[in-house]
Amino acid sequence: MEVLRYLYHHPHVTVNYVGAGTSAGQPIGSALPAFFGIYSEDIEPIDLQRIAEKADVAILCLPSGKSAAVAQALLQLGVRVIDVGGDLRLGAYDAYLHYYGKEAPLTQEAYEALIGARTFGLSEYAKEALRTAELVADPGCYPTAALLALLPLVEAGLVQPGGVIIDAASGVTGSGAKPTPATHYVTVDENYAPYKVGQHQHQPEIEEQLQRYGDVGKVTFVTHLLPAQRGILETIHVALRMPVSARELRSLYDRAYADAPFVRLLPEDVWPNLRAVAGTNLCDLNFTVDAQLQRATLFVSIDNLGKGAAGQAVQNLNLMYGFDEACGLTFLPSV
Amino acid sequence: MEVLRYLYHHPHVTVNYVGAGTSAGQPIGSALPAFFGIYSEDIEPIDLQRIAEKADVAILCLPSGKSAAVAQALLQLGVRVIDVGGDLRLGAYDAYLHYYGKEAPLTQEAYEALIGARTFGLSEYAKEALRTAELVADPGCYPTAALLALLPLVEAGLVQPGGVIIDAASGVTGSGAKPTPATHYVTVDENYAPYKVGQHQHQPEIEEQLQRYGDVGKVTFVTHLLPAQRGILETIHVALRMPVSARELRSLYDRAYADAPFVRLLPEDVWPNLRAVAGTNLCDLNFTVDAQLQRATLFVSIDNLGKGAAGQAVQNLNLMYGFDEACGLTFLPSV
Amino acid sequence: MEVLRYLYHHPHVTVNYVGAGTSAGQPIGSALPAFFGIYSEDIEPIDLQRIAEKADVAILCLPSGKSAAVAQALLQLGVRVIDVGGDLRLGAYDAYLHYYGKEAPLTQEAYEALIGARTFGLSEYAKEALRTAELVADPGCYPTAALLALLPLVEAGLVQPGGVIIDAASGVTGSGAKPTPATHYVTVDENYAPYKVGQHQHQPEIEEQLQRYGDVGKVTFVTHLLPAQRGILETIHVALRMPVSARELRSLYDRAYADAPFVRLLPEDVWPNLRAVAGTNLCDLNFTVDAQLQRATLFVSIDNLGKGAAGQAVQNLNLMYGFDEACGLTFLPSV
Amino acid sequence: MEVLRYLYHHPHVTVNYVGAGTSAGQPIGSALPAFFGIYSEDIEPIDLQRIAEKADVAILCLPSGKSAAVAQALLQLGVRVIDVGGDLRLGAYDAYLHYYGKEAPLTQEAYEALIGARTFGLSEYAKEALRTAELVADPGCYPTAALLALLPLVEAGLVQPGGVIIDAASGVTGSGAKPTPATHYVTVDENYAPYKVGQHQHQPEIEEQLQRYGDVGKVTFVTHLLPAQRGILETIHVALRMPVSARELRSLYDRAYADAPFVRLLPEDVWPNLRAVAGTNLCDLNFTVDAQLQRATLFVSIDNLGKGAAGQAVQNLNLMYGFDEACGLTFLPSV
Repeated sequence: MEVLRYLYHHPHVTVNYVGAGTSAGQPIGSALPAFFGIYSEDIEPIDLQRIAEKADVAILCLPSGKSAAVAQALLQLGVRVIDVGGDLRLGAYDAYLHYYGKEAPLTQEAYEALIGARTFGLSEYAKEALRTAELVADPGCYPTAALLALLPLVEAGLVQPGGVIIDAASGVTGSGAKPTPATHYVTVDENYAPYKVGQHQHQPEIEEQLQRYGDVGKVTFVTHLLPAQRGILETIHVALRMPVSARELRSLYDRAYADAPFVRLLPEDVWPNLRAVAGTNLCDLNFTVDAQLQRATLFVSIDNLGKGAAGQAVQNLNLMYGFDEACGLTFLPSV
Repeated sequence: MEVLRYLYHHPHVTVNYVGAGTSAGQPIGSALPAFFGIYSEDIEPIDLQRIAEKADVAILCLPSGKSAAVAQALLQLGVRVIDVGGDLRLGAYDAYLHYYGKEAPLTQEAYEALIGARTFGLSEYAKEALRTAELVADPGCYPTAALLALLPLVEAGLVQPGGVIIDAASGVTGSGAKPTPATHYVTVDENYAPYKVGQHQHQPEIEEQLQRYGDVGKVTFVTHLLPAQRGILETIHVALRMPVSARELRSLYDRAYADAPFVRLLPEDVWPNLRAVAGTNLCDLNFTVDAQLQRATLFVSIDNLGKGAAGQAVQNLNLMYGFDEACGLTFLPSV
Repeated sequence: MEVLRYLYHHPHVTVNYVGAGTSAGQPIGSALPAFFGIYSEDIEPIDLQRIAEKADVAILCLPSGKSAAVAQALLQLGVRVIDVGGDLRLGAYDAYLHYYGKEAPLTQEAYEALIGARTFGLSEYAKEALRTAELVADPGCYPTAALLALLPLVEAGLVQPGGVIIDAASGVTGSGAKPTPATHYVTVDENYAPYKVGQHQHQPEIEEQLQRYGDVGKVTFVTHLLPAQRGILETIHVALRMPVSARELRSLYDRAYADAPFVRLLPEDVWPNLRAVAGTNLCDLNFTVDAQLQRATLFVSIDNLGKGAAGQAVQNLNLMYGFDEACGLTFLPSV
Repeated sequence: MEVLRYLYHHPHVTVNYVGAGTSAGQPIGSALPAFFGIYSEDIEPIDLQRIAEKADVAILCLPSGKSAAVAQALLQLGVRVIDVGGDLRLGAYDAYLHYYGKEAPLTQEAYEALIGARTFGLSEYAKEALRTAELVADPGCYPTAALLALLPLVEAGLVQPGGVIIDAASGVTGSGAKPTPATHYVTVDENYAPYKVGQHQHQPEIEEQLQRYGDVGKVTFVTHLLPAQRGILETIHVALRMPVSARELRSLYDRAYADAPFVRLLPEDVWPNLRAVAGTNLCDLNFTVDAQLQRATLFVSIDNLGKGAAGQAVQNLNLMYGFDEACGLTFLPSV
């Protein structure tokens, strides 16, 4: 739904096909009543051959365990693929099996072939690769925020191995549309609690990606559920390998994101929050440094449905086709 | 759960038995984690014989269609019954069949025998009958509020037939604990909408009860879902049969509820709200009169889980056993 | 802020000047931190001469009592004016004095001259007049919703005088940005209550506008505050002058809004809600008819900041300049 | 208000006097409308002499900077004092001046005399001292939760100096009743953000108290504001001085709180949340241990108005007078 919202205004993209399982056959405006009178096309059953006929690129928003096989087939039919789901994020086959492979596991050979061919789509760190990518695995929502906050420090060699602690909080859209006791209004409202402690599938994704840029080691990663619709805020504590001043850190981030239209390093003492990025592809950043403890605390916020999902998918599509990176994505937050 | 909360402090009641279906066998503190360490007894399977051995009175909180048969059996075993569910609220068998009888319908004969024997448990209007009642059908949450607001006017002959319009709004606990798309946090939060328009099972209950006190005729009744946990507020418009001043109305309510410890007629220009009754058995009331249009607008609020369910059940239990009406019910709102 | 958000994507409008009182001198991104890095211009002090130099049309979002004089001065300087505030909505001078004139009342002569020259900007009912309008008074948020729902019935002569009852509920953005006890999070959250009962400034506006299209008489209008950010839902009961079927009503609305891109008559049994119009200029409508009581119940929802304020201002601007009515306004709801 | 709510059911306490500044002269039910019809006494102006005549013990809930002088005066009049405010929490005079002394600073001599005489009222760690205490400074809400979670580890010598990181989140009642931009509904709702980063007055309080039980050094403490009324959840990361198993930690907490009726160590994999302690004096605890990183992560929740304020005040009053510790405090969470 959010991908449709972002693409509605995109000047260079035509949505030729919207497919789904259970809601196939209905008009989009029936399945998604808010789009009544706006998107009048029908939702089609999922038909890979038909997708290949109608589309240059497919954006997959399928449940875990469902997208790897679809991606593989579409690639063979010559369709470029952006997978918003989780199946192709992890490089390690055993981690894939543990977190995503339960229902429809690929063989190790098939999986590794796909992973070898896929680009990990953290837009700001994959611009070159995206130009020619045939298969893009978009990062998870929590990893997107964590990596954008941490990678400048990792690249600068500032992070002590084992010294990263991420306390993350997310709105409920991060938990999926399926009604469960955990997503019942009465459970979530006026509440706040950790969940999936020590068991979140985004932990190995964060560790694996950080490790590509430096020796960071194991990360402590705790997720909490907020009484809110959308948005992720992460408070990240980093043990530093050497003393760094706030001024040096600021300059580091300035350089790292000088050309990144969606990453905003906020002014001193202005802290990221959910509302300032809601409904957008923005990522807000700020930090403090404690010289005595040689520890930096990073703050980062994104909309989990925006930069954490649909927004980044469209940003990657722009980069894959040589459009302006921000094309169709210049929504202002409706704070 | 809310009944257990109310009974926990009741000086004259011992909870000897807590039964349930799917959660039987677990300690109460596992099924209801907030009660961990407080209620340590196990939840038992539902066993009517065992209830009859252990209890003088049973409070039934069963889904629609499930309580009528249980109530019938317990009565035969000599247990007094307070039914918080909906099965025995309606006098008319056809309305019962339509709204509650789908899954386990009683025969007309059996139903009418039960209804003939049951007391409709709107505490303030059933004090005498409750003393000796063996079977009490507690009113629904919306009817409790509507009747407490309307009955003084109906009894005074002030209501024009066909002249009652009820716009009611409820928190989500009124929609049950089952996770559904309608109770998903993402559906409810930041939203507000009518639901079950023209189809709510509380409409015939309100009409039937009003009719016992005067000729009110058909009622317009619209329910709305609020982004809140608990509480009902009803805004009720009444076409008056004759001119009445605000002063006369105030005096009417004062007299009607002079001995009602839980009904509060608020001072002029102070309006009922959800928070001032949350977690309690209170019912707040106020009104305006429009002389030109000969129309009164009544405002009434209750906690749907309090006076609208568990609170009224305990109040009725008190009246059935000759305890002080407010015994165990003097919670203050935790605004 | 919301006007800036809507105009950001408008293809034919350039924002040349943003003025304010207390925040003048700051960059927009400091006063409105969510716009940091997006709107980098400074907020200017309010200087009418400078506005006249830089702008063809001014959109005024000033507190009550402040805009009439500014509008008058800008008109004399040759600037067309769209007033989103409340000063120029009421035709009757005594009602104006009572509701808006307390702090800076215009003389009766000055007021009536302005009112005589102003167009009441309910877009769907003022298209012709808007083309050449120099001064547009945008309707209040509640009246916008009420009038769009009621006017087709009034024009068809279906409404019984004295027979309109409006129960309206609004999110908190309708109460202004000023921190007060009434807008404190702890007051609003998990709560719901009527407010300004019998005293709301939108009541005379609704009555006056309805009366332009038929004899509707006095209206009962009750406003309630919702625990939500944005959105208005009104449940409107109408005593009908003659029997009308649901089919006839549907056809009436279909005709009335055949050319209205933002008014959506929803399919049968799909009810308006806040989320489906949030962040947009849409207005959702539906209804039921009770043949026995000869009463229609209308449901209507808008975003009070969209169609109820900034969206309608931009729609009116489009109509004033001959742009496509929907230009810059095709946001999809971010449900 | 919350103190009145807790004391309403206390069997051994009579509320003889309720005093306040701006609301003096009104009935309690006017100043606190939810208490209308329940607490009918008037609020009195603050008159120390009169307090001394009527009360054995005074519970002070005054703004920062206001209670130290009142406490001092009441002590001299022979009244025992429980100060729920912040003025007398910090031992160090310079920290007091910085955080609390701005408006009505005591001299260093007067301050140190008061501090020397006061008991720091973390109930579970001050039982003996409370019996005879004349002046009790109740801990802040964040420190109450942090200390209950950390002190068993500190006492066991398990905490590495500089190795404590506290990410804390609180509902809005923690920010005071005064309407400000930060507590406006529109700012808080659907949002989440850090605040007072590096500047929170509870940081020195936590460090000072921890240091009494072991060498913990400086603490990283970050507070976040939740879109919720009440409740605090803290996620606390602890670098351990030696390897400890989860079993050993569990046994440590079991022993530490064997006699603490309000501290609940939850079963394995059941995590503290706000709702399970809301409206009560409970404190819920749990933890994980990461052997590889030699790091424990603690989770702790309280109601900031309960165990974090009014509840702990009543618990301390019970301990001061030899009542059962839980007297009047056995509310069940109304989840």
